[in-house]
Amino acid sequence: MVDYIGVSDVIRLIGQLGLGEFLERLALEIEADYRRWDVFEKSARVASHSDVGVIELMPASDGERYGFKYVNGHPKNTARGLLTVTAFGVLADVETGYPLLLSELTITTALRTAAMSALAARWLARPDSRTMALIGNGAQSEFQSVAFHRLVGIRSLRLFDVDPTATAKLERNLRAMPELNDLTIVRCESAAEACLGADIVTTVTADKKNAVILTPPMVRAGMHLNAVGGDCPGKTELHADVLRMPALQTFVEFAPQSRIEGEIQQMPSDYPVTEFADVVRDIRPGRRDPNSITLFDSVGFALEDFSALRLLYQLSQTDAKDRKTIDLVPTLDDPKDLFGGTLGRGRARLRRVS
Amino acid sequence: MVDYIGVSDVIRLIGQLGLGEFLERLALEIEADYRRWDVFEKSARVASHSDVGVIELMPASDGERYGFKYVNGHPKNTARGLLTVTAFGVLADVETGYPLLLSELTITTALRTAAMSALAARWLARPDSRTMALIGNGAQSEFQSVAFHRLVGIRSLRLFDVDPTATAKLERNLRAMPELNDLTIVRCESAAEACLGADIVTTVTADKKNAVILTPPMVRAGMHLNAVGGDCPGKTELHADVLRMPALQTFVEFAPQSRIEGEIQQMPSDYPVTEFADVVRDIRPGRRDPNSITLFDSVGFALEDFSALRLLYQLSQTDAKDRKTIDLVPTLDDPKDLFGGTLGRGRARLRRVS
Repeated sequence: MVDYIGVSDVIRLIGQLGLGEFLERLALEIEADYRRWDVFEKSARVASHSDVGVIELMPASDGERYGFKYVNGHPKNTARGLLTVTAFGVLADVETGYPLLLSELTITTALRTAAMSALAARWLARPDSRTMALIGNGAQSEFQSVAFHRLVGIRSLRLFDVDPTATAKLERNLRAMPELNDLTIVRCESAAEACLGADIVTTVTADKKNAVILTPPMVRAGMHLNAVGGDCPGKTELHADVLRMPALQTFVEFAPQSRIEGEIQQMPSDYPVTEFADVVRDIRPGRRDPNSITLFDSVGFALEDFSALRLLYQLSQTDAKDRKTIDLVPTLDDPKDLFGGTLGRGRARLRRVS
Repeated sequence: MVDYIGVSDVIRLIGQLGLGEFLERLALEIEADYRRWDVFEKSARVASHSDVGVIELMPASDGERYGFKYVNGHPKNTARGLLTVTAFGVLADVETGYPLLLSELTITTALRTAAMSALAARWLARPDSRTMALIGNGAQSEFQSVAFHRLVGIRSLRLFDVDPTATAKLERNLRAMPELNDLTIVRCESAAEACLGADIVTTVTADKKNAVILTPPMVRAGMHLNAVGGDCPGKTELHADVLRMPALQTFVEFAPQSRIEGEIQQMPSDYPVTEFADVVRDIRPGRRDPNSITLFDSVGFALEDFSALRLLYQLSQTDAKDRKTIDLVPTLDDPKDLFGGTLGRGRARLRRVS
């Protein structure tokens, strides 16, 4: 039997643990996996494009566990009441090839992106960072807010979105959370205003185009930039001149992927970047000094989904009362008799869905 | 909500329809999809290899539906009471990217392989074929037997396996099926004896090596060879001289894949083959004359899994009483408010697992 974590299960599991604690544990799992960078089989994602969107499979393996994520991106879905992005994933045992867990990953992807953003900021932002500009107040903005409050110590958020109803939705959701009652929330009239006094600037806008959300005048010495929204070819958020600022240090997840999908797609192929794995392994330096500008050019890497699947599997296995399993794979008395044990004589002996 | 077909569900669905009828409908679906060959996005499978096995993702799309199969191959699994091959798959809507169906594919893969074998024989074997040699009596042999009885009119089976307990298991399973009561079953002492008088020879052995199951002296004019077991690099069943017989016509599923995985991996890259899709579309001829020797060099192609997923989805949707769904993807009042509709305020409104 294969463990199953649906949408209602992931909400229950996170509710039991607490959202902040879940993000904290997820960030630690991701960090631990980046420390093991060399053991991972790092494959490109496999994409199937259509006129209206893309469906991707993202596999990863550490030699002991294998995981993959199915994820779609369909910008016009919201017009018909559907999510732009949905995702699910499977964790499997490399030794036997058997799947261990099937899990929802729509909510979890937003959580792992936020956990990764906050983890990178822990390593790269100035330790005294308390104020964050949050530009783009859509589906991922609450997740980013909670992660930076819990993991980085952000106590003031400066919000901006071209759509004021998005900002209103974000503020409403944040104010409904008791654990955020020490968080100051400021609505701003522009991205430039949001950046005023910010230690960290998170851009998480959704437009499928080369947008210009941040320009050099908005970027101050000592800032950390968390560029989340630019994550596929033709979709960027930073003016190219930001990437050319002398004080800038650019950090990425997996350079070959980021050069195609990240902000740095705007730069030549020899544009200098540091892989985050090298920072956590002390192979290359992180922030040089308090006046450096650090950029985490986030695109989302399969390793982070792998970390999330492993954490969910741990939680599921100790969730004795509510743990669900599905009969995705046959359990046979005689593995050499597939027919007899299923469609043939033995069908009565098969275990049923629990 | 996403439809779910587990092992017990697929057994129930096939039981309701009848195994022969299921194979018949599956063969028609596969044939219909091969007629639409040009609309398919044909991708290579994505493999993750380890010392003990392989895990693969096999995607396919016709522009309307997208499907993929997860499948492992771990030859040593049976020693620990596990299946060598397990599989599951997902069918999704290209227009929205949403998954529609998650299904078991372990049993279904054996069924689709058998349906494909029988379909190819319908097109390529002599129409008066009634006797089949079945060499290799392991996990797939019952499926092949039932498909050739139902779809091709085979009424006499000549069995051989190096392991007599495998043959005994196959015969026991076949004799337990009332629909096969007009089938003569003959146990043979060797592959050569099994081939005596056979119109069709099916090889479905499991050894992970370049084996020599068939040699030219066993192959008669007019035979159809259904070579199922040789399906990955380094795993073949036919002596290379069989592939060089002057009367031989070789048919494959998707030539680029078959040249790597099929019997023809033993031949130069310009070895002449005909793709099955060209035969069903009347672009290229099938069997030239009654004395030709036709070879279907089967390796298993993603299109066949796609056809199977579509058929299962049809059956699931009309299975009103027992249809199962899982909450693999969130259903939200406001698709722009993922957080509020799940972890935030709206969690109470989420639909639960049915």
